[in-house]
Amino acid sequence: MYYAGVDLGATNIRAAVADDGAEILAIARRDTPRGPTGIDVTEAVLRTLREACGKGDVDPRAVEAAGIGSFGPFDLASGTIENPANLPDTVETIPLTGPIEKLIDSEKVYLHNDTIAGVIGERFHSDRNPDDMVYLTISSGIGAGVCVDGNVLLGWDGNAGEVGHMTIDPEGLRTCGCGHDGHWEAYCSGNNIPRYARLLYQDAQGMDTVLPIEDPDFSAVDVFENAENDEFARYVIEQVGHWNAMGVANIVHAYAPLVVYVGGAVAINNPELTLDPIREKLEEMVFINIPQIELTTLGDDVVLHGAIASAMTAGTGDRTRIRG
Amino acid sequence: MYYAGVDLGATNIRAAVADDGAEILAIARRDTPRGPTGIDVTEAVLRTLREACGKGDVDPRAVEAAGIGSFGPFDLASGTIENPANLPDTVETIPLTGPIEKLIDSEKVYLHNDTIAGVIGERFHSDRNPDDMVYLTISSGIGAGVCVDGNVLLGWDGNAGEVGHMTIDPEGLRTCGCGHDGHWEAYCSGNNIPRYARLLYQDAQGMDTVLPIEDPDFSAVDVFENAENDEFARYVIEQVGHWNAMGVANIVHAYAPLVVYVGGAVAINNPELTLDPIREKLEEMVFINIPQIELTTLGDDVVLHGAIASAMTAGTGDRTRIRG
Repeated sequence: MYYAGVDLGATNIRAAVADDGAEILAIARRDTPRGPTGIDVTEAVLRTLREACGKGDVDPRAVEAAGIGSFGPFDLASGTIENPANLPDTVETIPLTGPIEKLIDSEKVYLHNDTIAGVIGERFHSDRNPDDMVYLTISSGIGAGVCVDGNVLLGWDGNAGEVGHMTIDPEGLRTCGCGHDGHWEAYCSGNNIPRYARLLYQDAQGMDTVLPIEDPDFSAVDVFENAENDEFARYVIEQVGHWNAMGVANIVHAYAPLVVYVGGAVAINNPELTLDPIREKLEEMVFINIPQIELTTLGDDVVLHGAIASAMTAGTGDRTRIRG
Repeated sequence: MYYAGVDLGATNIRAAVADDGAEILAIARRDTPRGPTGIDVTEAVLRTLREACGKGDVDPRAVEAAGIGSFGPFDLASGTIENPANLPDTVETIPLTGPIEKLIDSEKVYLHNDTIAGVIGERFHSDRNPDDMVYLTISSGIGAGVCVDGNVLLGWDGNAGEVGHMTIDPEGLRTCGCGHDGHWEAYCSGNNIPRYARLLYQDAQGMDTVLPIEDPDFSAVDVFENAENDEFARYVIEQVGHWNAMGVANIVHAYAPLVVYVGGAVAINNPELTLDPIREKLEEMVFINIPQIELTTLGDDVVLHGAIASAMTAGTGDRTRIRG
């Protein structure tokens, strides 16, 4: 019995085929076509999936089920992406589930956004296969995939878990990419850390810093790389840590998870500097049981593993749901 | 076919018996015994339920199922309350589901905390029977019962929806009853509004006010009653409205509800002054679809109606689950 997974990002596509122990047999990847039409993306996905099957010596028609973790927004009823914000404007509809169903000759194709795929993957691969957990990504954006009482939360419009847009700053000093003020993501995502650092620097003029604050290429990497030797970099990381702790405390009170797995480039590249402040401050902030705060165990492959785990467990990550 | 509901509060117990259209046939009530033991509370619940059945001319053994909305904390496996904080220390275990099962001769007895009963009741009685909704109570505390994708969220320890303990003030000026700083409840619950008003008054010394700030009996009622004629009262209500909007915006991004029903004494007694600021500010704060913000349609009876709706729908509020 074989399963397939697709990680469809704005930059690249990865597909994998796995055995019934969720062991990946082969991976293929290619760049995500930048248009002109959605069908180009569909065809690239099919080609990548066929290539992964070929490498793994698996007939696509022997694949029992497939999962897809992708950017959105989706029309879940038709299994398509509609007018994605991160591809050229000419790209309208990207058909996904239908063409993959035909390729693998199975109706078991599950489409999720990448945070949902993340929580399904973390749940499946976690030792305890917990029913109550959160996958939090701190990357160019901040978002969560959430499982409560064994159910992965979607919401009527698929927007449950948009935690990066929780308001954490009542003064709303920073404006989020979505246009609203004071959102968590506006302070702590990879893109926003340098902008927030510039804002903080206005009130810290006395502080010496080696950070290239004025440089247009100033990035979160500069901040984290200078944590040891630069007082201002440490100050930025401390402030970011405080907002991250507030965001995670709000996640804890919303969902009561046993464990929060944190992924995304910011966390994966700076695990201690990202997770330790959250762990420390959570004790001061949380009234109910404090969950474990862990780095994702699946690294950059979390969405691909999640897509495969979704295929194996009918979109749940619940290992008791695997059918032979 | 008959159903029963119990609303067990720290002050009083209410029980009702209803027909298979969820129409209440009779209600009984008595004070909640203040100890010395948990069994005293159990016996008072049974007596109240028997009395409601008697008034409604219903044999308790003809009751198909019963629901209970109660304070906690619970041991759900044994169907008991354990060491409740709001009864005398001598009260340890309060058996609930077991004795009620015997009384009605049915194993269909559902125990929930009051916010969970609230969301089950609102869902059942809402015109649309929505799968995605929140019941928010703003009373002596703040908390939510939440339904996402048709599932009422509990969490492994029953603590999902403890939204009153979300951190909304990064400066943590007010300390919550739970001992942590900056929680929503510390600014906006009925008990905390007067304390928060005193804090605000320190920075508003120039402002004339008729509010009895120094009076130990100064209460939220004084604030809301003087909204029309007192500048400082209006200022307090405006600040409370801002924090409430932040709290509700965070609820929206966590759960993506279609509708948020708001109950609890603060909201029920001051619907416009509580809900209008939330509705107005939500547009500025929310990135995803903005839900309807509605006053509870079930008023003070929301927990009792929720307990009955739980009995009828196996703890879901989903009307398609009613069995003959």
